[in-house]
Amino acid sequence: MTDHFADRLLDAIDKKGSPICVGIDPVYEMLPDAVAGSAAERDPHDVEACVDAIYEFTTKVLEVIRPHVPCVKFQSAYFEKYLWEGVQAYYELIHEAREMGFVVIGDVKRGDIGSTSEAYASAHLSEIDFEGIDEAATPDAITINPFLGMDAIEPFVNAAREAGKGLFVLARTSNPGSADLQDAKSIDGRTFSEMLADKLQTVAEAPGMVGRSGWSALGAVVGATQAHTMTSLRERLPRSIFLLPGYGTQGATAEMTRAAFRDGKGAIVSASRSILYAHQKRPGTSWVDAIAGAVEGMRSDVRSIV
Amino acid sequence: MTDHFADRLLDAIDKKGSPICVGIDPVYEMLPDAVAGSAAERDPHDVEACVDAIYEFTTKVLEVIRPHVPCVKFQSAYFEKYLWEGVQAYYELIHEAREMGFVVIGDVKRGDIGSTSEAYASAHLSEIDFEGIDEAATPDAITINPFLGMDAIEPFVNAAREAGKGLFVLARTSNPGSADLQDAKSIDGRTFSEMLADKLQTVAEAPGMVGRSGWSALGAVVGATQAHTMTSLRERLPRSIFLLPGYGTQGATAEMTRAAFRDGKGAIVSASRSILYAHQKRPGTSWVDAIAGAVEGMRSDVRSIV
Repeated sequence: MTDHFADRLLDAIDKKGSPICVGIDPVYEMLPDAVAGSAAERDPHDVEACVDAIYEFTTKVLEVIRPHVPCVKFQSAYFEKYLWEGVQAYYELIHEAREMGFVVIGDVKRGDIGSTSEAYASAHLSEIDFEGIDEAATPDAITINPFLGMDAIEPFVNAAREAGKGLFVLARTSNPGSADLQDAKSIDGRTFSEMLADKLQTVAEAPGMVGRSGWSALGAVVGATQAHTMTSLRERLPRSIFLLPGYGTQGATAEMTRAAFRDGKGAIVSASRSILYAHQKRPGTSWVDAIAGAVEGMRSDVRSIV
Repeated sequence: MTDHFADRLLDAIDKKGSPICVGIDPVYEMLPDAVAGSAAERDPHDVEACVDAIYEFTTKVLEVIRPHVPCVKFQSAYFEKYLWEGVQAYYELIHEAREMGFVVIGDVKRGDIGSTSEAYASAHLSEIDFEGIDEAATPDAITINPFLGMDAIEPFVNAAREAGKGLFVLARTSNPGSADLQDAKSIDGRTFSEMLADKLQTVAEAPGMVGRSGWSALGAVVGATQAHTMTSLRERLPRSIFLLPGYGTQGATAEMTRAAFRDGKGAIVSASRSILYAHQKRPGTSWVDAIAGAVEGMRSDVRSIV
């Protein structure tokens, strides 16, 4: 295992043959009956039952997608919903995913003033260093929110560099409302996202940030839905790996992400609900086969453009 | 207890006689020896010892400040640092604070695309509704990060309205680096923060958001350090309560917050480290007396301007 995040991610993509990421967004109400029981049998107020179902579901999903998927992204919100029990599942399942060889991204979107970002970096990025806690782990990289400014990002950068980990800073998100603020034009003609990208570029190429692959440990989240701004952001952040959520349910296609890649590298397309809940659109297929089929479809689609 | 957050907060401020908030940012390494033992006795890798010390410290702080402080703000990062054990402490100590009559703000700064913000709102704002979990609670209000746009805020607004709770949206943060993005000028001359404030204003006055006091359940975080932009933001958000962090250690004075108040109302000044760790600057005083003294000083200072 190399100690630079970007190199590790690129190696994993090469090995599995496709730059795709599956988002782990477990929603108890949407889990297949085979895991969580029929609608009548489910009790969303029984936190233990919810968390047990999430463990079983996620473990099985990881096994099914493992041969073809280099990277998984855990969405913290769906675990936090189950309070500390859910948070324990988050760390334990991330440990499991890392043991299985996945590169794991924690989608936590944290960001705060410097001293507080330091505590968040310790919670979510640095390796866990508590006596007796061995079956739990932090992810290889996390998403962070840049709204507070560059001094709020710095503690995450330091923690990432120290632990050989990565960051994906929100640059242009996949939701329709992202235009409200991120697409606003600043006085010099750049959008807010472009202005941010220019600031991030300095950090992306700072000493110790670029791996032997030529890619930086500081990546960016750019919604796969945001094709119109992809070229501009790619030019501004030439060494940042783009994490591209929004494929599938949110409406993005592989074609829309073409400009994020440079010689077929430097980006990873992410889908969550369209993979995890594929059984809902494939009646008569087992949920496991539905997921395998959805991953295979996404894989071919993305391979066609790289 | 009224079912509107703004009314509840204003009542609490009236009752205690001062619009101040104490931030609960427990850092194990900075706790007084009387709670956590001498430097030689502490083990930051013993998660149980850390969390026990945080429980004891926070409980005592709440008791000491209770007569004079209407509101406390729990900083989630310092609890998340201790993984699920810390998260459990967060919810249990919030329960304790609410039982003691404090209005409690959860400083979580969450924000994500719509479906994910819904999960965050369920985790952090809606009342807990799991069987067997009775000694834990969500706060009366949380802070949220608006970077993703207005559709990312909506699920929090819905959850707040339903539960009679409140939101403080980051509008201009207290850190020096907030100028990087929040102070950037847009093409029409407004700063990014001002543009955001104008968008938030529509939500602040939407049906069901304004209480009998005339103040909205949608408040804003405006750093107490940002005196130069206070008047502009107050005009743009006339019904939003301003949460003003940064008093004390970050350098803000009560005088700097004057423009946030309207007839002495509508804002709450928040300090964390300068109160919690007052013992470090008052040798020879017990840590409890140091905190009481620091609160008394802050209280007089803030009362002098309202």
